[in-house]
Amino acid sequence: MSASPLGAAELQRRENILNSWAAPGVSVQVADSPGGPFSIESTVEALLAVRTMLSALAARASAPDAVVIGCFGDPGLAAVREVMECPVIGPLESSFHLAAQLGQRVGILSVLDSLEPLMTSLVRSMGQSESYAGFASVNTPVLELKKEPERTVGKAVEVGRRLVQEKGADVIVLGCMSMSFLDLAGPISAEIGVPVVNPARCALKTAETWLALGVTHSRRAYPRPRKELRGLVTAATLAASD
Amino acid sequence: MSASPLGAAELQRRENILNSWAAPGVSVQVADSPGGPFSIESTVEALLAVRTMLSALAARASAPDAVVIGCFGDPGLAAVREVMECPVIGPLESSFHLAAQLGQRVGILSVLDSLEPLMTSLVRSMGQSESYAGFASVNTPVLELKKEPERTVGKAVEVGRRLVQEKGADVIVLGCMSMSFLDLAGPISAEIGVPVVNPARCALKTAETWLALGVTHSRRAYPRPRKELRGLVTAATLAASD
Amino acid sequence: MSASPLGAAELQRRENILNSWAAPGVSVQVADSPGGPFSIESTVEALLAVRTMLSALAARASAPDAVVIGCFGDPGLAAVREVMECPVIGPLESSFHLAAQLGQRVGILSVLDSLEPLMTSLVRSMGQSESYAGFASVNTPVLELKKEPERTVGKAVEVGRRLVQEKGADVIVLGCMSMSFLDLAGPISAEIGVPVVNPARCALKTAETWLALGVTHSRRAYPRPRKELRGLVTAATLAASD
Amino acid sequence: MSASPLGAAELQRRENILNSWAAPGVSVQVADSPGGPFSIESTVEALLAVRTMLSALAARASAPDAVVIGCFGDPGLAAVREVMECPVIGPLESSFHLAAQLGQRVGILSVLDSLEPLMTSLVRSMGQSESYAGFASVNTPVLELKKEPERTVGKAVEVGRRLVQEKGADVIVLGCMSMSFLDLAGPISAEIGVPVVNPARCALKTAETWLALGVTHSRRAYPRPRKELRGLVTAATLAASD
Amino acid sequence: MSASPLGAAELQRRENILNSWAAPGVSVQVADSPGGPFSIESTVEALLAVRTMLSALAARASAPDAVVIGCFGDPGLAAVREVMECPVIGPLESSFHLAAQLGQRVGILSVLDSLEPLMTSLVRSMGQSESYAGFASVNTPVLELKKEPERTVGKAVEVGRRLVQEKGADVIVLGCMSMSFLDLAGPISAEIGVPVVNPARCALKTAETWLALGVTHSRRAYPRPRKELRGLVTAATLAASD
Amino acid sequence: MSASPLGAAELQRRENILNSWAAPGVSVQVADSPGGPFSIESTVEALLAVRTMLSALAARASAPDAVVIGCFGDPGLAAVREVMECPVIGPLESSFHLAAQLGQRVGILSVLDSLEPLMTSLVRSMGQSESYAGFASVNTPVLELKKEPERTVGKAVEVGRRLVQEKGADVIVLGCMSMSFLDLAGPISAEIGVPVVNPARCALKTAETWLALGVTHSRRAYPRPRKELRGLVTAATLAASD
Repeated sequence: MSASPLGAAELQRRENILNSWAAPGVSVQVADSPGGPFSIESTVEALLAVRTMLSALAARASAPDAVVIGCFGDPGLAAVREVMECPVIGPLESSFHLAAQLGQRVGILSVLDSLEPLMTSLVRSMGQSESYAGFASVNTPVLELKKEPERTVGKAVEVGRRLVQEKGADVIVLGCMSMSFLDLAGPISAEIGVPVVNPARCALKTAETWLALGVTHSRRAYPRPRKELRGLVTAATLAASD
Repeated sequence: MSASPLGAAELQRRENILNSWAAPGVSVQVADSPGGPFSIESTVEALLAVRTMLSALAARASAPDAVVIGCFGDPGLAAVREVMECPVIGPLESSFHLAAQLGQRVGILSVLDSLEPLMTSLVRSMGQSESYAGFASVNTPVLELKKEPERTVGKAVEVGRRLVQEKGADVIVLGCMSMSFLDLAGPISAEIGVPVVNPARCALKTAETWLALGVTHSRRAYPRPRKELRGLVTAATLAASD
Repeated sequence: MSASPLGAAELQRRENILNSWAAPGVSVQVADSPGGPFSIESTVEALLAVRTMLSALAARASAPDAVVIGCFGDPGLAAVREVMECPVIGPLESSFHLAAQLGQRVGILSVLDSLEPLMTSLVRSMGQSESYAGFASVNTPVLELKKEPERTVGKAVEVGRRLVQEKGADVIVLGCMSMSFLDLAGPISAEIGVPVVNPARCALKTAETWLALGVTHSRRAYPRPRKELRGLVTAATLAASD
Repeated sequence: MSASPLGAAELQRRENILNSWAAPGVSVQVADSPGGPFSIESTVEALLAVRTMLSALAARASAPDAVVIGCFGDPGLAAVREVMECPVIGPLESSFHLAAQLGQRVGILSVLDSLEPLMTSLVRSMGQSESYAGFASVNTPVLELKKEPERTVGKAVEVGRRLVQEKGADVIVLGCMSMSFLDLAGPISAEIGVPVVNPARCALKTAETWLALGVTHSRRAYPRPRKELRGLVTAATLAASD
Repeated sequence: MSASPLGAAELQRRENILNSWAAPGVSVQVADSPGGPFSIESTVEALLAVRTMLSALAARASAPDAVVIGCFGDPGLAAVREVMECPVIGPLESSFHLAAQLGQRVGILSVLDSLEPLMTSLVRSMGQSESYAGFASVNTPVLELKKEPERTVGKAVEVGRRLVQEKGADVIVLGCMSMSFLDLAGPISAEIGVPVVNPARCALKTAETWLALGVTHSRRAYPRPRKELRGLVTAATLAASD
Repeated sequence: MSASPLGAAELQRRENILNSWAAPGVSVQVADSPGGPFSIESTVEALLAVRTMLSALAARASAPDAVVIGCFGDPGLAAVREVMECPVIGPLESSFHLAAQLGQRVGILSVLDSLEPLMTSLVRSMGQSESYAGFASVNTPVLELKKEPERTVGKAVEVGRRLVQEKGADVIVLGCMSMSFLDLAGPISAEIGVPVVNPARCALKTAETWLALGVTHSRRAYPRPRKELRGLVTAATLAASD
């Protein structure tokens, strides 16, 4: 059987945190997408994760009330919206739009310098270039990040300060789910002096908001595909691919 | 004593609705701002409302946990943020950013044609021009709107459809608090076939989200004034001005 | 009676200067707006000034031929246009548009760092972001500025040079009426080597231009309010508020 | 000797009009640029006019205090600024920036449909796309325009109305010097109900404003050429070329 | 073995056409990506195609000199660039940039209305919104398109004309590879009177240009992934998935 | 007779290089434009070159299959397109659009600081501001550039690196034809580590691409002039002007 990219313990830890953040009556399940990349640090990994994510969704016994994409770069956000009726939330999209209300110029503070062009592309495609101050990273691979959380905070504060002073950011979005689940937004904000948005928590609250408002994504922006999808993973191929 | 612009009964009705929308444990008070305009249908009325709003806030015995501006045009949003520590939410700002996640091109459907230039100015100042599809209105004064809610829905559906078909909107924000409290978003959306955002309800959910995330507006974007404010309304001047 | 924010002597001095700048046959009156802020260094002060400005205009015995807003941040520009037939000129708006003809990238050199977000918001709302190089300030409160004009010039030259060299400004607008009436544009320009626009003088010339061309603001952009305004200051409330 | 493109009588008529518009003490000379195009209705004609314009300027006995380009498309504006110290004003540039203060969305109403791409290019290069509502034309060649001024007004009103209603223009710039000197701005504005800017008159007033403010174009935006120019017209070549 | 989405005969036909378009000495192979969608008419199908495309590339015995993505929506363009050293060309990207040289405002004429939001997103992410006139479609599924090519041309001419007259397009890109291989650009252009770009042919010529110039995509924009990719298709899984 | 600006030997050298770059069967002629500037280092020189360029084209015995403007600033690009049926290619336009495919943010590395405002203006007018990272120059006059090519490379590498590190360019266009014909793109790219585009070679390949695709510039964007052009150079005037 396919091992989870993050490991069962980490998935459970994240699920516990999300449930502690959830509104009363809301229950969160963290679903693994077996066969996907161990971590998403490039566009190609982001795109390869889409199929396994869709496969995991298709394999569920019952439809969820809402879906939150489990990676900051919102891999497959438009694709999942096309196939699902319920609200589908992207951590980047929702936290960028929240941050753009907290300040005028949003900075993204992420894990690897190599993610900058992907962020530029996503911000452009959301039509948010005018609110984008720029990007900074701690340049630490996702999987090493949590080994030394204090060192991560120290580096994040240093590069975040430059994002504020040199690029004029007045609000920061953490550009990584692992940073979200280490709950680093508060400590970093306290040091830098600008609000810092936790994208995992923000995405969860945004899902709750869509549900409360009774809205979901526009079918004019995310039309339903006309043909059945090919190439999703079945139990058999999943077994074969790992 | 100054009569409320909307009247005590309408204020109470709105407060009841907001409390029915609020998350468990959240209590909403609708505060009148005596001496302000009876309705806000122009920039000048929006700006004159700022002083009475600030005065009403300053006159409160205890600080609120969050403030939602009570008018779609977000009058005084930046000003109130400058003087308050707690989250201050604008219905336009929060519902535009929500809508920009539901679709790619946001239309604003409001009450009067004369509000279009104010909306253009606000959308530009939020840096959201690239996501703005355009404006339409039922061209009915705010205070007459609720006399015939069904006729209002009919007109809204007609102009909203044109907003979708001619200007390419794929999501609509209702540009008026009265439309919000008539709860017209659902019926209009059902007819037009794109999501329609209720700005009052969205602003309330956004306030809850800021509180849940522990964030508030950036002091770099909304610096605290250095001097005490002059010209706010006291009991005496309030009596005199009405 | 309300003391003038600037004091009668300074008002008279400014009126004399403006009349020395005016075209033959043009007479300028500097009108106090009693009850307004002593100086405008924040958005909230800018907005609170609108009511006193409108009140002072409403209290005049005869209508002026043109109005120039007396503060660089153009407080209430759209609001005053809505209620007046005659040309209403904003120092920021008129000097930014003049500067954008003198060069390609306009810098704003103002008094306080805390004014930067307000400037960003105003430039965005004018649709001028593409011509905006950025902001710099001497970080000296308005009311202390004129105590040491030479020190002010020195600091302005220093930060203005950085605006040119680091942000690529090729023309500068002085972002403050006090700097205008100290006539600092010439000395600063001589040192930095790019044109520097005096916004008070530019606004006056722009008012003369509108009058010469026989144009005034568009009613489609600044529609006349449909209801009588509430909350303007009368003699009685004015007495009470100071 | 080269005949003037417009003819001596028309030049004199324009000079008289400009002097009637000029501020007291200002004297305007309309200078022919012999050898240039008879009218400018394309980019290539605009560019070919630059050499004759520069030649005419170089041939003057004394330097002017200011130069106004004599064609709406601002041919050679940057080039003339590079070689001249004094203010050099473009009718398009100055009237577009004035119009952008009168309203939010500027329409250009010109003579020929074929000028639209040139206008798009010029508006983009001024960084003014966000304020541009669009273009309309009476589709009448410049030289036929004045034969039937009333028919021109009628057509201009018709296409101008569409510019307002269909493209959302709330202010219009006349895109042609001949329309300027027929003084059509007033009659057209009276019919359409939005302000209409006369670019010739606006350019003259802008020149007066630059002189009053003591500013001229930025050398960082319009650097002085390092070498002597070749290819300007001398008396001999002029004789030969016509 | 997996059947090709298009079928072997159509692949061979396309390969023959491409080789007839290729420069002397250039040989083109059309590679199937087994297991992918039969046609790409949605974002989700575009993303699911990425894995099979990458798998097909990884399975090749020798590296190609250049890769052209075989679908107009450029699925996986950034992802393939990340993993490949050689030039990787997108039909949309290359033909949009060519079209933006042929005119000022590029229209995309594609097969299905439902593709419009994907095109908006791609144009935004390329930073090309300012050159984008809009979208039109013949609203015919890809696989039915070639059954009646003349009817397709007729419809394309009709909607293309509206793209020119109503949205101001002055150049058109065919938004579909099937339209490319029916070679419809010439006939459509002849009818509409604006240049029409064949994206398949343009992509091929762009690949030849990159090779001639000795350039390939920037590693700063498309960084090489740090980890080995998981989830590509092997022979075994491929057999299982079809 | 007029001496060539570059000299016959240099023209021949360039022609040889271009022919070595050309596709099989393509023959390139480098045409002098007598009477034009010796080098183009300012807007005014660029514009004065247009007439001599048009004259040289008009004087040719037979029409070329395509025209490439011989200067990086694309002088007269729109003008030449208006008068010619065949493809007319600008080195700046074509290489900027190629570079915008190689990366996300294009830097221009040119010869003189004084060219920066012209580049800003051209990039704006192409609608490419969102893809423009900025400008850098070796600040060496065109005519001295080739005396010490190695020193030029050294300086170019130094300022190009700053363009990458400080302004975020991820691809560079050489902003000068002399740099193109010294073939400096390769050596500079090898040092800086981002792709560097040779604009002369790119323009040639783009001309070949337009011809291969059977497209030429849109008449809607570049309408044919309605009148015969005046002021082109004849043999007689040419003799007189040198």
